[in-house]
Amino acid sequence: MLKACRSGIQRRGAAKIIARDPDYARLNGQDLQFFEGIVGKDRVLTENLETYNSDWSKWYTGASQCVLQPSTSEEVSAILRHCHDRRIAVVPQAGNTGLVGASIPVHDEVVLSVRKMDKHFEFDDHTGVLSCDAGHILEELENKLAKWNYMMPFDLGAKGSCLIGGNLATCAGGIRLLRYGSLHAHVLGLTVVCPDSKGSILELGSGLRKDNTSLHSHHLFLGSEGQLGVITGVKMTCVTRPLSVQSAMIGANTFDDCRKILRIAKQKLGEILSSFEMMDRETMGVLKDNLEFENVLRSDPPFNLLIETSGSNEAHDREKVDSFLEHCLSQGLAMDGVQAQSHEEARLMWRLRESATIALTMDGQVFKHDVSLPLDHFYRLTEEVQKRVGNVAKRVVTYGHMGDGNSHLNLTSTKEKAEELYQVLYPFVYEWVVKHGGSISAEHGIGQLKRPYANFGKPPRERELVKALKAVFDPRSILNPYKFI
Amino acid sequence: MLKACRSGIQRRGAAKIIARDPDYARLNGQDLQFFEGIVGKDRVLTENLETYNSDWSKWYTGASQCVLQPSTSEEVSAILRHCHDRRIAVVPQAGNTGLVGASIPVHDEVVLSVRKMDKHFEFDDHTGVLSCDAGHILEELENKLAKWNYMMPFDLGAKGSCLIGGNLATCAGGIRLLRYGSLHAHVLGLTVVCPDSKGSILELGSGLRKDNTSLHSHHLFLGSEGQLGVITGVKMTCVTRPLSVQSAMIGANTFDDCRKILRIAKQKLGEILSSFEMMDRETMGVLKDNLEFENVLRSDPPFNLLIETSGSNEAHDREKVDSFLEHCLSQGLAMDGVQAQSHEEARLMWRLRESATIALTMDGQVFKHDVSLPLDHFYRLTEEVQKRVGNVAKRVVTYGHMGDGNSHLNLTSTKEKAEELYQVLYPFVYEWVVKHGGSISAEHGIGQLKRPYANFGKPPRERELVKALKAVFDPRSILNPYKFI
Repeated sequence: MLKACRSGIQRRGAAKIIARDPDYARLNGQDLQFFEGIVGKDRVLTENLETYNSDWSKWYTGASQCVLQPSTSEEVSAILRHCHDRRIAVVPQAGNTGLVGASIPVHDEVVLSVRKMDKHFEFDDHTGVLSCDAGHILEELENKLAKWNYMMPFDLGAKGSCLIGGNLATCAGGIRLLRYGSLHAHVLGLTVVCPDSKGSILELGSGLRKDNTSLHSHHLFLGSEGQLGVITGVKMTCVTRPLSVQSAMIGANTFDDCRKILRIAKQKLGEILSSFEMMDRETMGVLKDNLEFENVLRSDPPFNLLIETSGSNEAHDREKVDSFLEHCLSQGLAMDGVQAQSHEEARLMWRLRESATIALTMDGQVFKHDVSLPLDHFYRLTEEVQKRVGNVAKRVVTYGHMGDGNSHLNLTSTKEKAEELYQVLYPFVYEWVVKHGGSISAEHGIGQLKRPYANFGKPPRERELVKALKAVFDPRSILNPYKFI
Repeated sequence: MLKACRSGIQRRGAAKIIARDPDYARLNGQDLQFFEGIVGKDRVLTENLETYNSDWSKWYTGASQCVLQPSTSEEVSAILRHCHDRRIAVVPQAGNTGLVGASIPVHDEVVLSVRKMDKHFEFDDHTGVLSCDAGHILEELENKLAKWNYMMPFDLGAKGSCLIGGNLATCAGGIRLLRYGSLHAHVLGLTVVCPDSKGSILELGSGLRKDNTSLHSHHLFLGSEGQLGVITGVKMTCVTRPLSVQSAMIGANTFDDCRKILRIAKQKLGEILSSFEMMDRETMGVLKDNLEFENVLRSDPPFNLLIETSGSNEAHDREKVDSFLEHCLSQGLAMDGVQAQSHEEARLMWRLRESATIALTMDGQVFKHDVSLPLDHFYRLTEEVQKRVGNVAKRVVTYGHMGDGNSHLNLTSTKEKAEELYQVLYPFVYEWVVKHGGSISAEHGIGQLKRPYANFGKPPRERELVKALKAVFDPRSILNPYKFI
């Protein structure tokens, strides 16, 4: 995974310091003895906890004194029952690959890692239903499914280290969402353990595609960021692996033309369209200046669209992409367009999109965003920010999953101007997004980073509701405290 | 919609009589005056309420004295606030096309109809996001979307009269689920009104494909059968209308061969596969004997598979279906197979599937089922039931959405043997389904019909959880009482 060196300034401003809640008990020797009795001595870690107390970007640092590594739901249940009784705060942690600090303790919360819960794996290749423990690594699941010609319905940069339980708890998005939908489209059932007086182990939903026999409460855990219960097992649908993947790049003069091209792609590529990514000219600039990567489109257009299809017949798919490109060119919507003729050509296209993050970190201090916007306003945000920041920023760079309305707006600055840029940007950006019907966190979540802004645009009654729902599962409020609920 | 004359015996056994809860207030003149002040005199109905007090099959009969027809969320809010304060029980009702009596009062509950909430309609053809009131008829939405070449992501027999709000409250399945996923894959946000002291109007979720800024609590309302709150508005994704629809029928000798054919269809038809329906030989028998419909397959195979594709290129789709059929025949999995060469030929195939319900009602007393089963057990249920009922039943007929694991097992009997058949079938069928990892209600819900069986296989803690979740939204438990929660 690419390692971005993000601005300490952006963090300092966003994550305000929250005092430790004195109602939470401090861990003592008896607690540790109890935990050792449950999971065994070697699964109660009290030393060298750095990797659990901080994230890969080193933005967040917790002060947990204890990491537990249970391997069964029963062990999780015994731990949570004890923590409930003693009122010990707990942070569930999966692969710890998040970008907003949701899985990092704020103070001395016990870390409950699901990493060792990786035994159960069962796949029915007739129904495409996977049933497994929460601790499996996404990429390992992907590899296991390959022998049946299936794959996971989502894909992320962090796939080599993120765990399926964490993917579900954060309702991870990623690059296949346009084609296969969100995780709500795929989850059928969850095993969750609640931090209540019984350490209740709940089997919510089932392994069936259609089941209308109760409330569909498992969906509540998607995007809950570990604040309701600990996901220990999952049943979900997987998708057939495509036999043909095609890539193409298109240049457009205006964002309005990009919208029209998206509309045509949905019609002409229909069922095989799997990615519709946008990179503006500044994205190409930051790639050229820092990595010497050349745009595959010679015309250096204001907007570059990277389009991917996934289908079951290569000849059919290539014909569809050809016909789509020709249509866009003949209508004057595209000023340039090229279909990858080989795996190598496709790789050169995708290298541009995937290297944008690293090129930015080489460009200066980076202010990153992950917002959703209605397409009317998608690029207007960039234009408004360009106007507002003037020459305080070094660059204003926008790329993102345009097909999903998900924009990654980035600004870079020199070290000297970073503080000034911060003042110009916040809370302006988040206010603008909410005012224009957008979301301040499309796929990364709230965690610690966006906690001060989590309530933007949310009426008080919604906040009360969320708290009341948490109380149903976590009556003493011990699970992942100091986060968005 | 076809009108099935279902067995009074099946109903009598399933829906046990529940006494009126004396804690609910009886409606008085002041209440009616209050309601008239909110929605106007002509929207408070107190006479000729038969169509609101019973369902289309005339199975269920309520005794409501008052039907309210609000047209805005604010009116719904004022009504529910009043009902909360007075503790008046309320049944939300949409198109009233359900099959299990979920939207019919059990006693004298006030009926809150959302039928008049059909003003707001907004569609963004770039993102495919629809925002509308809950009272729109599904087919009318489908027709409105046609001008943008979009369609609703699900389809039902009741589309001419069911309302989108009811579709969401019951998490309706239908015949496009295999291709487009359940409604969880499409709902982005809901407006719901809660029966609490404020009559809270909640905007849950948003109109964005990606939004991770709060709990995804709108998903809790899908399948809640109107027991948490009243859905008054929806934001959801719609799908591109296919340019080519192909149908084919395949005959197979064994159910195991059907499973193998499904596996091949997922690989070879992949992204265009939109239906995979199974009808057994007895289904063809009931169609022939009662409607004189002939099977389009001359070989009269034990299993008939009706397969549909929806795609964007007719030549490509026909080629894929051809190649798929050839493969199944050459592998010896299919004993017979035919691709529809015209719209008329396709119609003859689908007429078989769609007329099975009416043919059954002409065959005798009908015992209907709507269950989900893992494919291992899908047809074993039929075989077990065949053995068990012997010659007490006239016929044992199975068809269903095999691609979704959803079996519609039907039994017919003479009038004389109906009681005996009932005794042989229940609770055996539901117990067998739960024991083999299935669901006793795949898409029709629980309502009044399956209330006695709703807890089969559900642990007590799940029941407590469901009640606690209801209490968050409906603190005085006035909404749709006597149903599954």
